[in-house]
Amino acid sequence: MAAMIEPARIREAARTVDALSLIEQGFVAYSQGRVVVPPVAEMIFDDPPGEVHIKYGYIKGDDVYVVKIASGFAANPKLGLPTGNGLMLVFDRTGALECLLLDEGYLTNLRTAAAGAVAAKHLAPRRVTRVGILGAGVQGRMQLEHLRKVREFGEAVVWGLGEAELAAYRRDMEGPGLRVRTTLDAEEVAASANLIVTCTPSTRPLLEAAWIRPGTHITAVGSDTPEKQELETAVLGKAARVVVDSLSQCRLRGEAFHALRAGDVALDDLVELGAVIAEPGLGRRSEDDITVADLTGVAVQDIQISKAVWAALKPPAP
Amino acid sequence: MAAMIEPARIREAARTVDALSLIEQGFVAYSQGRVVVPPVAEMIFDDPPGEVHIKYGYIKGDDVYVVKIASGFAANPKLGLPTGNGLMLVFDRTGALECLLLDEGYLTNLRTAAAGAVAAKHLAPRRVTRVGILGAGVQGRMQLEHLRKVREFGEAVVWGLGEAELAAYRRDMEGPGLRVRTTLDAEEVAASANLIVTCTPSTRPLLEAAWIRPGTHITAVGSDTPEKQELETAVLGKAARVVVDSLSQCRLRGEAFHALRAGDVALDDLVELGAVIAEPGLGRRSEDDITVADLTGVAVQDIQISKAVWAALKPPAP
Repeated sequence: MAAMIEPARIREAARTVDALSLIEQGFVAYSQGRVVVPPVAEMIFDDPPGEVHIKYGYIKGDDVYVVKIASGFAANPKLGLPTGNGLMLVFDRTGALECLLLDEGYLTNLRTAAAGAVAAKHLAPRRVTRVGILGAGVQGRMQLEHLRKVREFGEAVVWGLGEAELAAYRRDMEGPGLRVRTTLDAEEVAASANLIVTCTPSTRPLLEAAWIRPGTHITAVGSDTPEKQELETAVLGKAARVVVDSLSQCRLRGEAFHALRAGDVALDDLVELGAVIAEPGLGRRSEDDITVADLTGVAVQDIQISKAVWAALKPPAP
Repeated sequence: MAAMIEPARIREAARTVDALSLIEQGFVAYSQGRVVVPPVAEMIFDDPPGEVHIKYGYIKGDDVYVVKIASGFAANPKLGLPTGNGLMLVFDRTGALECLLLDEGYLTNLRTAAAGAVAAKHLAPRRVTRVGILGAGVQGRMQLEHLRKVREFGEAVVWGLGEAELAAYRRDMEGPGLRVRTTLDAEEVAASANLIVTCTPSTRPLLEAAWIRPGTHITAVGSDTPEKQELETAVLGKAARVVVDSLSQCRLRGEAFHALRAGDVALDDLVELGAVIAEPGLGRRSEDDITVADLTGVAVQDIQISKAVWAALKPPAP
């Protein structure tokens, strides 16, 4: 019978995998057309309000396929539960379930943070003065943690909605070699950081184009629907290079979707992250460039991370 | 932690539920717009060839939603495995998984057979002379079994591709009160039965319009993709009433899809099974009518059956 793996064991196994390389390889495979990723399946709930996304696919030649089911129910916190939840299913190529990873959304958080680090590795200026994070939640923490693997920096400035969550963020994240400053003013982040990651569920732009200084890289990971938006569309218009995780997805959701609709960028201007990884000349051309990476989350990330975690957990073949 | 239920326990629990009433109620709810069923998610494999379908949805007001993942890999029999496999996941309305039903496709077979019986109950002539079954596999067996709950008949004629599978079918199904005749000639089924169910994966029409006699009801359950087809489109054109499980699905796949494209029926001619159940005047109007039910399989069936099986299995609330 299939294995059902609980959250604690998944987190433990995830610590042993190199998420960054896995996601990097996944994006390259995706942009080379070696990954089958059908459109995201989506189910909307009115009462109580919520949404379920199903992402699924496989890498050609692999001996597994993966289905991820992720949910967000806004009323959960009232019940003492986190808004998000999720699980991943790894099937073999006969259709038999190999394992159910009950990760409660942790692996999605991990692969999203790893993707942020991959984007920064290939697009951020070499010298990072200060990292800026918009969103003081779980993803805001994980992004900062993963950025330390690709750039050296001693200070972060973090924007959030309230003093309490910002204080908690600083308490959790500050440590040897890392000072954390907090602010309620997003403009302050743009003014003091040259590597910025936005990871909020905002439906209104948080960063204005006028604030963005030359030599800044911004990765937007919060928006994964047509409704959500973290960047003024002119931010993308101002960028020397706009990179997306998936051209087909970013036409329909996320920051690029809004900027395309507003006419601030054209489809031909967009380049996939996997293409930039494979051909660095497609990325940043000078330390003064403004660059933007728009990450909506692609099933290949789920495939890569769940495969690796399952490989670390599964009993050896007899 | 969520429950993972193995096939044997699922079959046992399924015996205690009234699948026919559940499916009947599900179709009515669906046709009344009380069920949210997003488009089927689909993933195609080339090598080895196969397909995965994800059906998912919820009944408004329910405290659960359901995701079903079903697969078909044609090369499985070479490995000693059945072609089809599947599982169902029942989630609560916070996004937490309640149970994983590892039914290996059994519940899909059951809800499909129950739907066939529901279609016959509401559309077949009152007096059934002989039941005809095209397809001597698992579904051909389950259809015959379930038809006995809605009509009285003493004889069935079964068409299949080879003598061996037909002999096995007769051995399995013949018993007190039921004689089973077998044939390799589909026309013989049309000539001798007035309640016919087609349950094959055929991609070419098996039944010709010229063969169909007045007073016949045909339920087609095999075709659930745009490629598969069991009835000549003129069979639908010849029918006094063509009933479909889902108007939105049958426009895109199944027998109605082919007949619409061929111009043998118009979209306005089609009526949903749930509407016929709620308003019997929409169904058969005389014993001489030819009627056709085209069942492509709707997520509401999966929702109804998995909910009931899980209700029969789950530990009582503390």
